[in-house]
Amino acid sequence: MVQGIEPYSLVRETESVLAFMDIHPVNPGHALVIPKNHATYLADLPANIGGEMFQAAMQVAAGLRRSGVRCEGVNFFLADGAVAGQEVFHVHLHVFPRFEDDGFGLRFGPDYGKKAVRPELDRIAANIRDSIAK
Amino acid sequence: MVQGIEPYSLVRETESVLAFMDIHPVNPGHALVIPKNHATYLADLPANIGGEMFQAAMQVAAGLRRSGVRCEGVNFFLADGAVAGQEVFHVHLHVFPRFEDDGFGLRFGPDYGKKAVRPELDRIAANIRDSIAK
Repeated sequence: MVQGIEPYSLVRETESVLAFMDIHPVNPGHALVIPKNHATYLADLPANIGGEMFQAAMQVAAGLRRSGVRCEGVNFFLADGAVAGQEVFHVHLHVFPRFEDDGFGLRFGPDYGKKAVRPELDRIAANIRDSIAK
Repeated sequence: MVQGIEPYSLVRETESVLAFMDIHPVNPGHALVIPKNHATYLADLPANIGGEMFQAAMQVAAGLRRSGVRCEGVNFFLADGAVAGQEVFHVHLHVFPRFEDDGFGLRFGPDYGKKAVRPELDRIAANIRDSIAK
């Protein structure tokens, strides 16, 4: 999704984050929000900087809708880890406009669509909860 | 991606947000982070609550990696507006684990992959910047 982070065509700058145009846009208006200080993965990102990234992304989304680019909806996407699609190893949050029949979409694995069983969800939730608490 | 928001199998609760398991997971461990107070779209969400959602999502991501579910990477995804894939009209941030060959991926439109032209990016960036400032 990103070939390289080139923080030009600046959209937004706050104390700790930058937003700028993606050089390989999904749709025109596609922006990236990044922390100014290097963080390879989410695990390296201070929580408050993550919060600031999301707030900047919300402002970019609102700006996109009024900017004149075709924007009937907005997606946020973030990939943490190569298996998740991360190609540039500096945390970045994608913000891109969507419009009818733009061709963007999600592909799912063969098991998608099956309704999960509640006891299994409860078990996984408890494990995640315990992991967070540790 | 979501058939209905059923905030059970709780993963995380903070002052203003909840995280719980998605009933139709992309992969086992798929969680949703939502604001407790109703917000249909991002435009209805207070910025600080958005920041709190992202921080909760970071904690869920870290928890997922240590929870025992298969998790070699993590994606965040948010759809704002029906055209963007929003199906439940209460803001929600998807957090889901990824692993090798899980079948999940992104589809792109026919123009994707073309490198954008810098003057065009600068023009769009200026328009978004002006829209944010207004």
